[in-house]
Amino acid sequence: MYYLGVDLGGTKIGIGLVDDSGKIHHKDSCPTNAGEPWQDTLQRMADLARSVAQRGGVALSDVAAAGVGSPGLIDTTTGEVVFANNLYWHNVPLGEQLSQLLGMPVWADNDANVAALAEVQAGSMRGASNALLLTLGTGVGGGIIIGGRIYAGTHNGGAELGHMCLVLGGIECTCGNRGCVERYASATALIREGRAAAQANPASALYSAVNGDLDAINAKTVVDCARAGDADAVRVYNAYVEALGMTIISFINIFEPQSIALGGGVSAAGDFLLDAVSQYVYEHLFYKSLERPKVVLAELGNDAGIIGAAMIAKQGLADRATAQ
Amino acid sequence: MYYLGVDLGGTKIGIGLVDDSGKIHHKDSCPTNAGEPWQDTLQRMADLARSVAQRGGVALSDVAAAGVGSPGLIDTTTGEVVFANNLYWHNVPLGEQLSQLLGMPVWADNDANVAALAEVQAGSMRGASNALLLTLGTGVGGGIIIGGRIYAGTHNGGAELGHMCLVLGGIECTCGNRGCVERYASATALIREGRAAAQANPASALYSAVNGDLDAINAKTVVDCARAGDADAVRVYNAYVEALGMTIISFINIFEPQSIALGGGVSAAGDFLLDAVSQYVYEHLFYKSLERPKVVLAELGNDAGIIGAAMIAKQGLADRATAQ
Repeated sequence: MYYLGVDLGGTKIGIGLVDDSGKIHHKDSCPTNAGEPWQDTLQRMADLARSVAQRGGVALSDVAAAGVGSPGLIDTTTGEVVFANNLYWHNVPLGEQLSQLLGMPVWADNDANVAALAEVQAGSMRGASNALLLTLGTGVGGGIIIGGRIYAGTHNGGAELGHMCLVLGGIECTCGNRGCVERYASATALIREGRAAAQANPASALYSAVNGDLDAINAKTVVDCARAGDADAVRVYNAYVEALGMTIISFINIFEPQSIALGGGVSAAGDFLLDAVSQYVYEHLFYKSLERPKVVLAELGNDAGIIGAAMIAKQGLADRATAQ
Repeated sequence: MYYLGVDLGGTKIGIGLVDDSGKIHHKDSCPTNAGEPWQDTLQRMADLARSVAQRGGVALSDVAAAGVGSPGLIDTTTGEVVFANNLYWHNVPLGEQLSQLLGMPVWADNDANVAALAEVQAGSMRGASNALLLTLGTGVGGGIIIGGRIYAGTHNGGAELGHMCLVLGGIECTCGNRGCVERYASATALIREGRAAAQANPASALYSAVNGDLDAINAKTVVDCARAGDADAVRVYNAYVEALGMTIISFINIFEPQSIALGGGVSAAGDFLLDAVSQYVYEHLFYKSLERPKVVLAELGNDAGIIGAAMIAKQGLADRATAQ
């Protein structure tokens, strides 16, 4: 069977024609134009979906269902976007309207949640029943998979993995609290500490890598300088690895998942990150005799949103069949 | 239907005859005698179970199944106690052997997990589908309920809620890591800080409450002195409430449960604790517009183990019927 997977982002809408195995047969994208009436966005989304199906060689009537991964808080029972601040959306009946426009059932869920499902169904955590995805970007996002399905709380207000407290009374967070994981394990944190270290030591490689233009330091700068052995960068990087490692340990002590995948910008550091974090995690496990949870790099990158959106459509259809 | 619920503790075995609603019709207990051969313990357990059923007015053949809540790591698929350090048990085939001795199906799970199930089925969190129990005692234990069922990880190595990191690099924990919740939100933590405050200020009510015998300070001493308004005790207590409150916020951001119940020794502080913690939690919620998770005091006390054990037997039987 075929599904349409819609990755609704703040700037771009990506849509793919996806099969049962999670393989994308055709994909395309268009701008989101956040701020325009949501009806216009949904119309463009539907037009692109039709075009993607057609160019993928499948009649729209042969597409079984569509799924949408959206930012913000989603009511997964109705497909309503309760709010998505970067789209300026409040109470948008996304599922219902898109279903009418496409003439097929539509499911919607949060974008981080569907990405986690994608990694379990078709990516780095394939076959895992209990799994977590952590995305290390501007913030720290994530998704929880339990028993092969997204778990996101009673009203989809959970899985805010970046807002677990890591440092009681620590750095102020955008959420209003202090010491959230996101303030220590995001790309933003790595950049903040890299800049501070460069400022404190103009002799550091961090400083010379950007010719003293500290604003130009990004996560890759810190990773590259740490990889090259610069003492300041290594110190910043090790502190980052400790914060991320202890975050993962906390999640293992809570969930004991089979797999934890790392995605987002910082995960571009690849094995350099994975090796350091895995070592930290395995040294700090609570149950050392149990089968070790795997720590892996997310595989699907930008396709995770499309694939995961298709997979919630697949699960939704299967559930509906079971219930009947 | 009737079930036997067995609460296997380090010093005492409590057994109750429990009905479908979670009501205990008769209960009794005997010593555990930890250190004796496990076969002897199970024999005594079976003898007591028979006697409890009989004195509850129900023939053993009319008891549908038995459940056991055990300390340690349990293989819930086989009922084996993988290890339980305070019983000196390793790889004890508890479920299988007790089933033979009683002639009925037996399920086993960790004691904290079954207590959480008991509070959901018959106690403070009745009706909640997603819920957490936190027990604030010598350590901090807990159980996770998702979709009405115990969730404890892939091999039952999860739900170690007291070993989420709260203070990166903080106080050393018995688990080998630093900064675990347990070091800040247990009765032990409240006592430790109370003693330190009394030692630092012999004019404090904390000091005079125990006539300078600091070893005599317990959780109740600190709570009572805080309630009476002693400045040192209030400071210690407020720090405790903040640690516990932020722990609960972390769990809400991860799980968004309908209810979180507080049990264990510190919860004897009652509304004085509940009011302070609830206020902290509601002020620090991430999603302020969603229905608030309830923070409540656990109701079942020492009976939670017996009732929860009976409830895993009830669920186990129901699952078996569904599978057939």
